[in-house]
Amino acid sequence: MQDKLTTLKARLAEIEDVIGAADILEWDQLVVMPAAGGPGRSYQYATLQKLAHEMYVTDEMGRLIEDLSAEYAGAPAEDDDAALVRVAARAYKHKTQIPAALVAEMFQAVAFGVGVWATARANNDFALFLPHLERIFDLKRQVAACFTDTESPYDALLDEYEPGMKTSAVRATFAELKAELVPLVAAIAARPPADDSVLRRDYEPKQQLAVAEQVLKTFGFDFTAGRQDLSVHPFCSGLGQRDVRVTTRVSANFLSMCLMGSMHECGHGLYEQGFPEKFARSPLTHAASLGLHESQSRLWENLVGRSRGFWDHFFPTLQAAFPASLGDANAEMVYRAVNRVQPSFIRVEADEVTYNLHTLLRFELEVDLLEGKLAPCDAPAAWNAKVKEYLGLEVPSDKLGVLQDTHWAGGLIAYFPTYTLGNLASVQLFEQAVSDNPTIPGDLSGGRYDTLLGWLRANVHQQGKKYLPNELLTRVTGRPLTAKPYLAYLKRKYTELYNLT
Amino acid sequence: MQDKLTTLKARLAEIEDVIGAADILEWDQLVVMPAAGGPGRSYQYATLQKLAHEMYVTDEMGRLIEDLSAEYAGAPAEDDDAALVRVAARAYKHKTQIPAALVAEMFQAVAFGVGVWATARANNDFALFLPHLERIFDLKRQVAACFTDTESPYDALLDEYEPGMKTSAVRATFAELKAELVPLVAAIAARPPADDSVLRRDYEPKQQLAVAEQVLKTFGFDFTAGRQDLSVHPFCSGLGQRDVRVTTRVSANFLSMCLMGSMHECGHGLYEQGFPEKFARSPLTHAASLGLHESQSRLWENLVGRSRGFWDHFFPTLQAAFPASLGDANAEMVYRAVNRVQPSFIRVEADEVTYNLHTLLRFELEVDLLEGKLAPCDAPAAWNAKVKEYLGLEVPSDKLGVLQDTHWAGGLIAYFPTYTLGNLASVQLFEQAVSDNPTIPGDLSGGRYDTLLGWLRANVHQQGKKYLPNELLTRVTGRPLTAKPYLAYLKRKYTELYNLT
Repeated sequence: MQDKLTTLKARLAEIEDVIGAADILEWDQLVVMPAAGGPGRSYQYATLQKLAHEMYVTDEMGRLIEDLSAEYAGAPAEDDDAALVRVAARAYKHKTQIPAALVAEMFQAVAFGVGVWATARANNDFALFLPHLERIFDLKRQVAACFTDTESPYDALLDEYEPGMKTSAVRATFAELKAELVPLVAAIAARPPADDSVLRRDYEPKQQLAVAEQVLKTFGFDFTAGRQDLSVHPFCSGLGQRDVRVTTRVSANFLSMCLMGSMHECGHGLYEQGFPEKFARSPLTHAASLGLHESQSRLWENLVGRSRGFWDHFFPTLQAAFPASLGDANAEMVYRAVNRVQPSFIRVEADEVTYNLHTLLRFELEVDLLEGKLAPCDAPAAWNAKVKEYLGLEVPSDKLGVLQDTHWAGGLIAYFPTYTLGNLASVQLFEQAVSDNPTIPGDLSGGRYDTLLGWLRANVHQQGKKYLPNELLTRVTGRPLTAKPYLAYLKRKYTELYNLT
Repeated sequence: MQDKLTTLKARLAEIEDVIGAADILEWDQLVVMPAAGGPGRSYQYATLQKLAHEMYVTDEMGRLIEDLSAEYAGAPAEDDDAALVRVAARAYKHKTQIPAALVAEMFQAVAFGVGVWATARANNDFALFLPHLERIFDLKRQVAACFTDTESPYDALLDEYEPGMKTSAVRATFAELKAELVPLVAAIAARPPADDSVLRRDYEPKQQLAVAEQVLKTFGFDFTAGRQDLSVHPFCSGLGQRDVRVTTRVSANFLSMCLMGSMHECGHGLYEQGFPEKFARSPLTHAASLGLHESQSRLWENLVGRSRGFWDHFFPTLQAAFPASLGDANAEMVYRAVNRVQPSFIRVEADEVTYNLHTLLRFELEVDLLEGKLAPCDAPAAWNAKVKEYLGLEVPSDKLGVLQDTHWAGGLIAYFPTYTLGNLASVQLFEQAVSDNPTIPGDLSGGRYDTLLGWLRANVHQQGKKYLPNELLTRVTGRPLTAKPYLAYLKRKYTELYNLT
């Protein structure tokens, strides 16, 4: 049986190598690739994805996983090898349920879809994107139909990003959020608007990047095993055990874009840098789920970076970096500015309070699109109606509406809810960290981040993908994912900030 | 039969995708990868190499190639599909002659060898490198032994880089070169040394890079389908049909490093950018051989960049970029400086006249190592003896001797002669270009490079890998590779420069 485990590990290690290579191709495309390289790169990326899939669904893998699953059935859940077999068995079952021809069609569709979407978005041309959107949802409907043990077609897609999560649970969570957030947004809108003009002064881009890099180092990001670059949309890539890269973007007249964005990606990066060496080249060297990944980015961006304690400590450093623009400012001004609540069109620029309404509307639309209740050609109108309903805004163009995100173009259906699950988990985990280490708030106000990072390393990062996200949350916080701490946090924070009653 | 051709093309396209991905991993490692990423990257690279090999040696590929070879046996050599089948058949035959276990062992040995070599070189520690060197030559000897239809074990290895070339032909060429070059070096040494101090003044690195980029653009390098970056050792990578990257390095006190090095890599890059679109994702979208590749880099570096015409035209631009260091200089001074002949230890810094003595000694050593006539532990002494004999120098350390090049560490045995074959071909091709287009010398003196590039595109670049290198040279210049034009060029040029009789 030891031989079989060794063989399985060797096969999985090579699959991880190919996945890592595909991630490098993607990073390269988004950060350094010359413009003309696009079509060739799409083929290369699609071929690596196809190979990684084919390497997983062999008969040999099936036999190894079947034999080892029986062998490890009684092993403790904490056992690394048992976890590896569980994770491999789950992935194998999922992958083999989809016919090879459908997998190939999907890889081909998504490989070129992002390019079509980028052109459509640049030209505000939904009609150009429509045939591709129809094809993606058609293929995803076929994928979902391969899974017969689900409550909803959406379940099969959601499970890829958030293992074990059910559509019904997401729906219930969003209902709970919506019931509280819509009135909260309205209450804030009734108050005098916060002033964020301090963020919109002149900030020299290179100086911003230097400050952001300094913040990342202070948080604990290891630049000998990572780097930060510029890209159109910020992202984080784990390209191998000790190669984790974050990207950011800069505006000379809006401080948050680079600084808060960098903290967000740093949170992702710290998670990736925290996987244990023993999981190298194994499927355990990944986040428990996309939601857990987002919990880390949100924790560093919001619970740390948008806290009063952080700004009390960090403001003098920022002021010294930008004396001309911040000479008359103070920590409280910036704290209030980075926490300004304002309904807006673009999800990635949304504040903490309105953000989840953006994901809610996407979740509702993609469920309807997948279940055939909404035709892709009607998506723009449906989108705009929901923005009006949840955020009170009239969408002026598809570019600021249905065309803004790349996810659907890339076949990432059921991805959006994980952003909100991450928001919830960020507060649930942070409060547990503080409960376990009551010095954390004081440490953060003093510019010491190692207590918090140490807790996250030990409790979350070092577990990699060993446990399902709700299992991990239960182990660490005593209960599965819940919206309660998150809602209480938002209400507490914004009641004080906006003087609500 | 059309179906079989379509299938073969599809299989080869995916193999090209994987090879391209591996090249991206290598570029990334040498240009942007954080230091800690090394071990993980070596696994990823080795896995992609292994996959590309496995995808080639399947039974299906064997049947397709066999059937199509019969079908295209009578087709004209110029036919693209016939050429594709020829190239695939050649590669398939070569790859299937080596047992899979040996291939795997070799991939593993080389994946980690470059790291060992880099440490050994940095610490001048040949003993650290020795076991790896022994293993590489042992494995290469086993590879060579798989080929029974060769005159010499070295033939099998040489054929990978220089298809159709024989060791006996290389030996004869080197004998011809040695007979002429050793006396030429001696005659030059007897003359007053050239003064290259003008190159060793202060040259601001960023300004050097800007000038180099401008030169590349003027030569015709397309930056929308390529880029130039910094790396420890300059190289060129074709990462896909329209993504060609060159690297360079800069010294603030030695102008040639960046400028001449950039022209060299630009020559490689222009070749890669010149492959026709119709060969995309096929094995024809490569150079005819490493020697032909080097002919392009040498042509732009030496025949253009080290010509009097180039400097007459370009010097004012350079002077304007560095007024403080070049205020008192003139074109002739720089022309003479970049053509200074001086025996030295390091191959990549050698001048045109002594360069081939560096490759000669490597060729002789690796033939002896492969044939078992020289033990790897005796390589340093043998190296030093040859440097004494050919260049008249005492090697002071292995770092400046046997440890200077990465090739053996990476398993690239029989690669060195291709540099010299490239030098010969550069003159043979350039003279043919001038013969076909007598305006070329005048165009170059006037800063117009499109006549030359156009000729190279039409006659060399657009052919990709369709023909064996000697077939291509014969088609273009009327004869196979010959040392005569090269030796005549050197003697003509350096007789004038050094006032030889």
